[in-house]
Amino acid sequence: METIIEADIVSQDNEAREKALKADYAALGEQLSRRGIAIDDILARVRAFGVAIPSWGVGTGGTRFARFPGVGEPRDIFDKIEDCAVIQQLTRATPSVSLHIPWDKADPKRLKQAAARFGLSFDAMNSNTFSDAQDQKLSYKYGSLSHADAAVRRQAVEHNLECIEIGRTLGSKALTVWIGDGSNFPGQVNFARAFSRYLDAMADIYAGLPDDWRLFTEHKMYEPAFYSTVVQDWGTNYIIAKELGPKAFCLVDLGHHAPNVNIEMIVSRLIQFGKLGGFHFNDSKYGDDDLDAGSIDPYRLFLVFNELADAEISGAKGFEPAHMLDQSHNVTDPIESLMLSAVEVQRAYAQALLVDRDALATFQDDNDALMATQTLKAAYRTDVEPILAMARLESGGAIDPVAAYRRAGYRQKVAHDRPAVASGGGGIV
Amino acid sequence: METIIEADIVSQDNEAREKALKADYAALGEQLSRRGIAIDDILARVRAFGVAIPSWGVGTGGTRFARFPGVGEPRDIFDKIEDCAVIQQLTRATPSVSLHIPWDKADPKRLKQAAARFGLSFDAMNSNTFSDAQDQKLSYKYGSLSHADAAVRRQAVEHNLECIEIGRTLGSKALTVWIGDGSNFPGQVNFARAFSRYLDAMADIYAGLPDDWRLFTEHKMYEPAFYSTVVQDWGTNYIIAKELGPKAFCLVDLGHHAPNVNIEMIVSRLIQFGKLGGFHFNDSKYGDDDLDAGSIDPYRLFLVFNELADAEISGAKGFEPAHMLDQSHNVTDPIESLMLSAVEVQRAYAQALLVDRDALATFQDDNDALMATQTLKAAYRTDVEPILAMARLESGGAIDPVAAYRRAGYRQKVAHDRPAVASGGGGIV
Amino acid sequence: METIIEADIVSQDNEAREKALKADYAALGEQLSRRGIAIDDILARVRAFGVAIPSWGVGTGGTRFARFPGVGEPRDIFDKIEDCAVIQQLTRATPSVSLHIPWDKADPKRLKQAAARFGLSFDAMNSNTFSDAQDQKLSYKYGSLSHADAAVRRQAVEHNLECIEIGRTLGSKALTVWIGDGSNFPGQVNFARAFSRYLDAMADIYAGLPDDWRLFTEHKMYEPAFYSTVVQDWGTNYIIAKELGPKAFCLVDLGHHAPNVNIEMIVSRLIQFGKLGGFHFNDSKYGDDDLDAGSIDPYRLFLVFNELADAEISGAKGFEPAHMLDQSHNVTDPIESLMLSAVEVQRAYAQALLVDRDALATFQDDNDALMATQTLKAAYRTDVEPILAMARLESGGAIDPVAAYRRAGYRQKVAHDRPAVASGGGGIV
Amino acid sequence: METIIEADIVSQDNEAREKALKADYAALGEQLSRRGIAIDDILARVRAFGVAIPSWGVGTGGTRFARFPGVGEPRDIFDKIEDCAVIQQLTRATPSVSLHIPWDKADPKRLKQAAARFGLSFDAMNSNTFSDAQDQKLSYKYGSLSHADAAVRRQAVEHNLECIEIGRTLGSKALTVWIGDGSNFPGQVNFARAFSRYLDAMADIYAGLPDDWRLFTEHKMYEPAFYSTVVQDWGTNYIIAKELGPKAFCLVDLGHHAPNVNIEMIVSRLIQFGKLGGFHFNDSKYGDDDLDAGSIDPYRLFLVFNELADAEISGAKGFEPAHMLDQSHNVTDPIESLMLSAVEVQRAYAQALLVDRDALATFQDDNDALMATQTLKAAYRTDVEPILAMARLESGGAIDPVAAYRRAGYRQKVAHDRPAVASGGGGIV
Repeated sequence: METIIEADIVSQDNEAREKALKADYAALGEQLSRRGIAIDDILARVRAFGVAIPSWGVGTGGTRFARFPGVGEPRDIFDKIEDCAVIQQLTRATPSVSLHIPWDKADPKRLKQAAARFGLSFDAMNSNTFSDAQDQKLSYKYGSLSHADAAVRRQAVEHNLECIEIGRTLGSKALTVWIGDGSNFPGQVNFARAFSRYLDAMADIYAGLPDDWRLFTEHKMYEPAFYSTVVQDWGTNYIIAKELGPKAFCLVDLGHHAPNVNIEMIVSRLIQFGKLGGFHFNDSKYGDDDLDAGSIDPYRLFLVFNELADAEISGAKGFEPAHMLDQSHNVTDPIESLMLSAVEVQRAYAQALLVDRDALATFQDDNDALMATQTLKAAYRTDVEPILAMARLESGGAIDPVAAYRRAGYRQKVAHDRPAVASGGGGIV
Repeated sequence: METIIEADIVSQDNEAREKALKADYAALGEQLSRRGIAIDDILARVRAFGVAIPSWGVGTGGTRFARFPGVGEPRDIFDKIEDCAVIQQLTRATPSVSLHIPWDKADPKRLKQAAARFGLSFDAMNSNTFSDAQDQKLSYKYGSLSHADAAVRRQAVEHNLECIEIGRTLGSKALTVWIGDGSNFPGQVNFARAFSRYLDAMADIYAGLPDDWRLFTEHKMYEPAFYSTVVQDWGTNYIIAKELGPKAFCLVDLGHHAPNVNIEMIVSRLIQFGKLGGFHFNDSKYGDDDLDAGSIDPYRLFLVFNELADAEISGAKGFEPAHMLDQSHNVTDPIESLMLSAVEVQRAYAQALLVDRDALATFQDDNDALMATQTLKAAYRTDVEPILAMARLESGGAIDPVAAYRRAGYRQKVAHDRPAVASGGGGIV
Repeated sequence: METIIEADIVSQDNEAREKALKADYAALGEQLSRRGIAIDDILARVRAFGVAIPSWGVGTGGTRFARFPGVGEPRDIFDKIEDCAVIQQLTRATPSVSLHIPWDKADPKRLKQAAARFGLSFDAMNSNTFSDAQDQKLSYKYGSLSHADAAVRRQAVEHNLECIEIGRTLGSKALTVWIGDGSNFPGQVNFARAFSRYLDAMADIYAGLPDDWRLFTEHKMYEPAFYSTVVQDWGTNYIIAKELGPKAFCLVDLGHHAPNVNIEMIVSRLIQFGKLGGFHFNDSKYGDDDLDAGSIDPYRLFLVFNELADAEISGAKGFEPAHMLDQSHNVTDPIESLMLSAVEVQRAYAQALLVDRDALATFQDDNDALMATQTLKAAYRTDVEPILAMARLESGGAIDPVAAYRRAGYRQKVAHDRPAVASGGGGIV
Repeated sequence: METIIEADIVSQDNEAREKALKADYAALGEQLSRRGIAIDDILARVRAFGVAIPSWGVGTGGTRFARFPGVGEPRDIFDKIEDCAVIQQLTRATPSVSLHIPWDKADPKRLKQAAARFGLSFDAMNSNTFSDAQDQKLSYKYGSLSHADAAVRRQAVEHNLECIEIGRTLGSKALTVWIGDGSNFPGQVNFARAFSRYLDAMADIYAGLPDDWRLFTEHKMYEPAFYSTVVQDWGTNYIIAKELGPKAFCLVDLGHHAPNVNIEMIVSRLIQFGKLGGFHFNDSKYGDDDLDAGSIDPYRLFLVFNELADAEISGAKGFEPAHMLDQSHNVTDPIESLMLSAVEVQRAYAQALLVDRDALATFQDDNDALMATQTLKAAYRTDVEPILAMARLESGGAIDPVAAYRRAGYRQKVAHDRPAVASGGGGIV
């Protein structure tokens, strides 16, 4: 397997940190064993945990007001794959890449080789009918899969079928459909008619799905449409998955909900009714801010993983969620943000594994709200950093991925090779 | 039919206003006929429209901080029925009353007689498992239909079955179930287990439903539970209605949603999938404020009725929504607020009937967002007050219900008969 | 004065509508006179009312995901001025244009001539330090007036001083400063130090303000910064205006507030403490959606104007608000949206003038909440369209601006002259 | 000093936990020393930190729907003081009690003795004009300090002056004024006139303030008023404090803000402009939920304390915030909730003390957003439980306050002495 960052640099950085790590790991291990938890079991599960990197996440994002690119921005999907390889090399938590078509369109075989070089695989394929591609015949200005014009819907369906086709070659096993369809004004669309058109178009896509694939639909409250959105919430998303069939599942993006919504409860409902497809992880304070996972409300991320760990441990039927980061990195080096975000997701998972579930169930049955919530807090409060760092170290990554990355001077190196991009237009997430 | 307000007072007040009303009605009729609308058709539909009064709405409401009762507060359900009769006499828009058990518990036959005296009928029955009644065996402190203890759930189921039994005698045809079950702390309840228990208990209630009854479940985002609520949104509500069966429907309270949520779209979805049961009308700015219908965002109320009128006109399958006001009158005379709220609901309905639906559909198909939204605005902007006033006049009500009510001095009269209530504890909605 | 739309087309369209308008105007006049209001007084005030057009508003807007341009997009500020002239010709409600520098940078004398040709004047100047201009030395990626680096702050100050200089030549009398400065992560900036730097930089700009100019600062809760924003709310904005001095005022954009915030109350506070500078009108459902004024919540717009009319009538000290539209037209013809939005703002003003303020004050003093709110509703419910249309007709505009505009085929004509723009990058508001 | 819980029980419980605590404390100490932090310094500061208990917090709270009392509810202020003494005995973090008048009205000398017995002192006095007391002459139904009627305002002013008088005897040094004044309907009050009346009334209260007292005003977005609130946000609160004078300060309740608002930034602004009075700590997910501090979003609590620690360390002028819990305990034993909430507040303080402020400032100046936010996270992630537990142990409290409390059987004991209270009316916070 090729690596991009020189192994020496990583091991030098690790050496300087290993002693402290071992001391912290031992102390934590002792504390956990007092709580009846074997730290090595947690370590093993953490090492097995992965989250996909979205290809578009390694470029600097932006807003409708401006985009301020950094140096060494990836020029194409092959540069992006290299950036993803760096993330995986240092964190060992991101074994796969999720592509966006047509942005990442290239010869599928070349793509496969490029990823295989670094041991990366391909996660869910993402179609794009929320913007117009350069050579596109009909515009998505007024919608795509729900458009009033059948020809536009057909074009959007075919684009999705093409994404499946590409994905088959790449070894992907899922298609994620997120559309921007909706309206900016009351009356602009008839909700029922638009949704019927959407369901019909999705049925056509579903019909083209290979047997071993899954179809993920993603709801979002608003943006880019500002009055109504066709797939506006999990209620609509659930109806879609039910109407389409057993291979259709709901994708949850943490930033796509109304203010104050209890997201972990939605996760629970989707698990209970067999329709949780997976996640787009990120964090947000206001809208779909697409900030780094866990950067604003880390306890919320933990509570989501509390549901996931509960389902995993209890063996919920059909439970096999896909994990992906989906963020916009406007003011940080995207590689650094993605490394730490993958770690944050891992952290929430590790903390959720520490929950004493038997005690929790007893407190719940006894209506002992205080001790029930303290049971979660006891797990959340635990500083699991030594476990995460040890997982990286044992898997060949870096104890401190950002430090190793900066030490290696990767950004400066690619800045040399990759010419500067013009500032301006909005980024994407 | 008995009336409470002296007929002379109403007719005197009407006489003083009739000339102006007729001029306004004629001018509006002329304007509408230019727009291709026969004003008398609208008048006829408005006259046929009714909204139920909740028995608890005629008492002064309050908050957890205080309740400031007015004078002449109703002492029992029989006083409440008299207040409802006044509302109906003056507005002719509120032909039925919705009871809350055990608050309104009384000899069903006496109840039926009391209402029949004023030509009032009984709308949906409301059960109460969100507070503890005085003689209640087990407490609902930690939930009712979703409680961890089967005995508490059984008690709650039986209470609902009793509500159905009472309703049968009264001629009601629906049971509305709203519960406060939920949690105040992460971990306090297991979402999936609690929801399973709820569904099982509801299935027991559903089994006791007469053939010609409907079961309405009402979702609410939060309050009285402040971290999670069992029936938190329309997604969960839809699942409930699907799981229970064809007599189960979703009730929409306008104040029970997350901030910024597009409620009219939820209404559309529930109509499209045959699960809209009806409404609890009110208005709100922050949470479940239970303010008077249309007092904060009258355009939103219109947009909801735009969906209802569209479904009515297009003959949506199984479309038969129940309309009820559900408000808390903390600083106004409840009778006055309920009269004007019923009128506001009627107003939204009348405006929605004015929408040029053929033009709208064409603009929608042409992606002419501007003209589509203007088509709604043209209807909404129309001052339909002359139609509403004429509907009241022709049905035997008051052109200006508040003026007639004040002229009649009803509140002062009942203040004399009904002793003052102590200030203090929270009101209810 | 030159006009762009042929006079014949407008008068033909008006002729077809004039008879109905006169009938409606007469009927409304009669109704208003019964309410003690002289319709011609309202007409006169409406005719004197104007709202500025933002130069950037006539181009199609977009989101971070995509921009879908229409045909005939303005190529430069001179095309934009022509589009503004069309809006003013047909509505007679938009006598001025507000420029954005550097987007609209051109020879000031030529600009002045271009506007004067159509009788347009220049409203507030807008600086731009939320994106990087092409030839800019230092980047605003990490802020402008609050940037940690003094050189960046200096550059931003000088840009603002240049805007003042350009504005002096054009006859503008105000500078509007809106910045995107803030942070995406807790800890990224020190709130207090950043705000001190901002205040110092603003003091430098204030020092360069001519005696007869005003300085408007605009607050916004979030976007483009997603964790904190330097001028995040009216509290901070008020402090700025107080610290800077008597020529500094607060600008209120209706879309820049937290969910559920009572904006009309903020307007009242700013009036009461002498610091209301003016408005950026638009409407929104979720965030800073920049939808057409009055398209989502027209009653809220009325309630804002209720405060303005109250201040105007009562002669509030120093009350001289600047009115401007600030919207993003993503799915409509921007000219059409701006025409109707100007009309909506006028409508709210006209309705607010109808409020019976003596009766209102009496109801308020008597704690008669119901009649107080009905007093507002009585004004709001009035269909003032005949007044607005008559104001346009008498001022030389179009009874139905959109109909006249479409009849004239302006968009098709400019589509011919102005080459198509590439799709893509985010729009701006 | 008297204690209520038997010393033996506490020491027995401590003994069983002491060994593990010492091991954890040592391991943490070693880790912190690697980070350049002396754990004993942090311990000393934590031991010196205290937060006041609100007298009303020890009773079970409720909502407008219901209140479900627990057993052993305190019957009067003397029972409440005993409950507060238990909290202080076990946590050693709550040395003072905050009274609410007239709820806690009693002979001041007896009050002082009752508190002194347990070493408790009195924090800020709280007046109550949001509900009507039994013997009250004029009602606050339509407001108090901003009421249209001067006699009502006078009554409210005198009540506040009486609170000051009582507080003088008790040794309190501050008055907290929170009112429910506002409106439920647009137009119900004139914002400017109501605020002028409020300011005049507050000036009368301010005039009665002893020289060494402070006056705290508390803003709240909504509830009990649901359209507008007189002191609705920190902007209005800041104006009040400025208008009144140097002894007037703003109180921040964490649950009184609009959705998504950045509260830590408001805290920073108030510190920067010398007007932060103190806090009412609690947590919330939806509105003013009054949940236990840190139970929903512990990182937000940390970010608030990050501002406080920064101000403390940098010696911000006039910085002397008052800390109080203000919560509603609806489903837990209030004593348990208050103990753990005090600990949570302490925890956030301890974590904030661990922030490497020099590194943070450097990252901020370098626009290194990633490392800046990681600097906060490194502090937050640290499990400081050993420090908090050690602080309790060394101060004579319990390592595990809830365990010791339950072991002591205090609730069962008082349940015996204090008769059961009727269920029903809303609780208060």
